[in-house]
Amino acid sequence: MNKIKFAKTPKPPYYAVIFTSIKIEEDKGYSTMSEKMIELLKNQEGFLGFESAREELGITVSYWKDEESIKKWKENIEHQEAQRLGKEIWYSSYKIRVAKVERDYEF
Amino acid sequence: MNKIKFAKTPKPPYYAVIFTSIKIEEDKGYSTMSEKMIELLKNQEGFLGFESAREELGITVSYWKDEESIKKWKENIEHQEAQRLGKEIWYSSYKIRVAKVERDYEF
Repeated sequence: MNKIKFAKTPKPPYYAVIFTSIKIEEDKGYSTMSEKMIELLKNQEGFLGFESAREELGITVSYWKDEESIKKWKENIEHQEAQRLGKEIWYSSYKIRVAKVERDYEF
Repeated sequence: MNKIKFAKTPKPPYYAVIFTSIKIEEDKGYSTMSEKMIELLKNQEGFLGFESAREELGITVSYWKDEESIKKWKENIEHQEAQRLGKEIWYSSYKIRVAKVERDYEF
């Protein structure tokens, strides 16, 4: 089953970073970097999980324990290099929203 | 350009409803209902926009002025019927997270 795809987040409150993006069509090293970032993320303090899907628009939601964890991830040196390449090469545009999850429920 | 795909949200704070789902493969009336819901949404008080993508996992993020607007949408009669059919037919599982967007930025 695909249930494994849902991020296993704890009881709220916790944080969500909603990353919406338009990518160029060519890969140009994106997939390799993407895998590298996922590996890095897994060892990042306060990281709770992520969910991702892409059609024309890509949406990746990552979940975090608190704002401090988000700040540290944003400042991670290897992630900063990925951010730089993202702007230079892979994304024609993106939007990031930082939100505090107040409640959740599932079926 | 694809820029039209980003939801045009106001300056934070506002709310995001992150709807993550696993759908069955067959359509079974889903597309028709989905279009109907989007039309309804557009006239819903406090609705600010939405972003959506699906691969194995589907992610739809809708944006709202406040919690009261989210509550009214959840209670909308036609939407309730869609929710019922969603559980009965279209989704094998889903997760809904209600979050307050505190800050955003774009490139």
